[in-house]
Amino acid sequence: MAVQTVATDTDTDLSLGPAAALSCRECGERFPLGPVFACEACFGPLEIAYDLPGGDPEELRKRIEAGPDSIWRYAPLLPVPADVADKPNLNPGFTRLVRADNLARELGVTGGLYVKDDSGNPTHSFKDRVVAIAVEAARAFGFTTLSCSSTGNLAGAVGAAAARAGLRSCVFIPHDLEQGKVVMAAVYGGDLVGIEGTYDDVNRFCSELIGDPIGEGWGFVNVNLRPYYAEGSKTLAYEICEQLGWRLPDQLVVPIASGSQLTKIDKGLRELIALGLVEDRPYKIFGAQAEGCSPVARAFKDGHDVVRPVKPDTIAKSLAIGNPADGPYVLDIARRTGGAVEDVNDGEIVDAIKLLARTEGVFAETAGGVTVGVTRKLIEAGALDPTLTTVVLNTGDGLKTLDAVAPTTGPSAIIRPNLDSFREAGLA
Amino acid sequence: MAVQTVATDTDTDLSLGPAAALSCRECGERFPLGPVFACEACFGPLEIAYDLPGGDPEELRKRIEAGPDSIWRYAPLLPVPADVADKPNLNPGFTRLVRADNLARELGVTGGLYVKDDSGNPTHSFKDRVVAIAVEAARAFGFTTLSCSSTGNLAGAVGAAAARAGLRSCVFIPHDLEQGKVVMAAVYGGDLVGIEGTYDDVNRFCSELIGDPIGEGWGFVNVNLRPYYAEGSKTLAYEICEQLGWRLPDQLVVPIASGSQLTKIDKGLRELIALGLVEDRPYKIFGAQAEGCSPVARAFKDGHDVVRPVKPDTIAKSLAIGNPADGPYVLDIARRTGGAVEDVNDGEIVDAIKLLARTEGVFAETAGGVTVGVTRKLIEAGALDPTLTTVVLNTGDGLKTLDAVAPTTGPSAIIRPNLDSFREAGLA
Repeated sequence: MAVQTVATDTDTDLSLGPAAALSCRECGERFPLGPVFACEACFGPLEIAYDLPGGDPEELRKRIEAGPDSIWRYAPLLPVPADVADKPNLNPGFTRLVRADNLARELGVTGGLYVKDDSGNPTHSFKDRVVAIAVEAARAFGFTTLSCSSTGNLAGAVGAAAARAGLRSCVFIPHDLEQGKVVMAAVYGGDLVGIEGTYDDVNRFCSELIGDPIGEGWGFVNVNLRPYYAEGSKTLAYEICEQLGWRLPDQLVVPIASGSQLTKIDKGLRELIALGLVEDRPYKIFGAQAEGCSPVARAFKDGHDVVRPVKPDTIAKSLAIGNPADGPYVLDIARRTGGAVEDVNDGEIVDAIKLLARTEGVFAETAGGVTVGVTRKLIEAGALDPTLTTVVLNTGDGLKTLDAVAPTTGPSAIIRPNLDSFREAGLA
Repeated sequence: MAVQTVATDTDTDLSLGPAAALSCRECGERFPLGPVFACEACFGPLEIAYDLPGGDPEELRKRIEAGPDSIWRYAPLLPVPADVADKPNLNPGFTRLVRADNLARELGVTGGLYVKDDSGNPTHSFKDRVVAIAVEAARAFGFTTLSCSSTGNLAGAVGAAAARAGLRSCVFIPHDLEQGKVVMAAVYGGDLVGIEGTYDDVNRFCSELIGDPIGEGWGFVNVNLRPYYAEGSKTLAYEICEQLGWRLPDQLVVPIASGSQLTKIDKGLRELIALGLVEDRPYKIFGAQAEGCSPVARAFKDGHDVVRPVKPDTIAKSLAIGNPADGPYVLDIARRTGGAVEDVNDGEIVDAIKLLARTEGVFAETAGGVTVGVTRKLIEAGALDPTLTTVVLNTGDGLKTLDAVAPTTGPSAIIRPNLDSFREAGLA
């Protein structure tokens, strides 16, 4: 059985497992596997086409369950060599799916509410998943330097993964980032370059570098390795279903930055159905944005197919992409599955971070505040059915976005070290 | 078969699994399970005595392996109810055992070097393990408030665990902690009380509170629940051996704060041997301290049995206990197993944090810098055998101690966004 494949007439010596070719998401044109990201014919984005394993679903399930406690248990469904788990990498994934009964009570959800908590990854964000796949592509293409443009999570994920894989790393960031983020990006010992300019300037510089002889041998995880990198997000779908007992959730709430993660989660779910690993039943995917950067939510609400770029202004910096490349695909998926795209403002984001921390002991980064806040809003609006099984993603760690909650989070009281002073504080 | 047990003449209605009684580590006197921590007869510290499961080791191994991916897989060996995994808690543990081949090459270790990376726990330190056990004790004793004195990791662990367990929390800290730590301690919505005074003042206040009617119904995880709490560290020993394929490592390097963790790791290893879960062969336990707070290392080197208290002055704040309660027991274990206790200075701690990050992509907190630094020092001194299997503990997360590396960690270059500027920087 082959699922979502192209014919394997595109021969390749690369050992990237079931990855068969690159395929244009717009015109369907096929290309051999390589470090390219745009269709020569129509400039559309390229993605991986697979020859996925056929045979008895029960056997595949068992093979997966016997695999490592990381994304590599799904190696048969990813563009990675079969022996990937034996190579030095960070082994991300298989993070907790938290049954969130306390939060469910607060939100009135009766059908089962879960938080997929990706703060448990090695560098504490979902980026470890995508970078791990990019590292394998870099190895396959003989790249010796791993690179990216980043404003935070990605820089640390690339630095750490390259260090362990024995690759050089060179990461580009705007020069005026907060010191904490700079430290996290630099501590792994690769080169970290501050660019005098905005994040857009950093991106433009990276594109220039890829085209220059200097950039030979460089794998930019989110540029020339993007088709591979992006596939890492499929593992969120695989894990959620396996952790639910090989069952599709009824509803998923997923954050939108570029939109890539949401589209790959949908791809992953469809693969599981096609392979017979889960029962084929409807699911709804909801997208979550911050009000200060909500071009996809805007388009969804206005019934448009086109996403109009915006200038971001939100505390949810890891989602602050004003011109999301996969926005139109996100709209398609939300509409096809009967989901929606919604946004929340900065105050609602902070409230949602605290709500999740207070109810489940999970300290999410701002992106997690966005998904939890949007979940609450969708329930109140009747768009999300509280009687159905719902999974909400937290893609990062509150420790990385302390500034969001710091102004409104502090001691209940400051007292002198004696019982009278404690009694006076009214907390006894 | 019964291991390390006392006779179960101490009847109890408490459902705390194989926990049979409290037993004085000094005089051996036994007491019923309860929220007490010191021997009535000799004031010695109390610890849990067990009726551990007998029977076929292979069956117990299989039962453990079929359990959850958390410390609850070892519930048959812990003072917790059999159905603990079904209760709301943070499910800590089963963190990565990282095969550290890059670091091994740098240190000249040929026998296999591993880092047990507890930064993957829910609140990113090993404290989640001990607090999870304390929560079960609190439930068993009918406590409604979970409390502790803390300067960092423990406050967050207690706040998060209480939130999820549906207990009130009230955590006491010195009032002048860094804002980041305060935010982490307060975000879970429990009461956080700043005390005008030092950590010692905070501790004294907590002892006063336990004796006062106000403190009724309060479980202080590191005071009146300490015998239960401390047992959580045994799970580090269990996991390391299981992850090595049910095999004892030859050498372990463990940080020393109060010394409790090291003694419980030894206890856990001896239990595994007694139960037949691992082969009975020698292992050596090495203790690691910071030079600015090294009373146990001092006593070890001087050949003393008594640990003379010191005033801590080190960047490794999570290890800065100047009068470590379990110091004498640590000395016993290091001497009995053929290990040692060594210390490193602040500069060596920072170097070791960076070394681990650069080689393995693991960003450790200062305590991890202490163990890696001590490992290097012990190898150079010939005290640790590089041809043997060695496991080094990282008990926390670099994100929580950014200040340690910030002054010496930053960009390789700041450039303008063009290729000429990049070439000039000499990184091409």
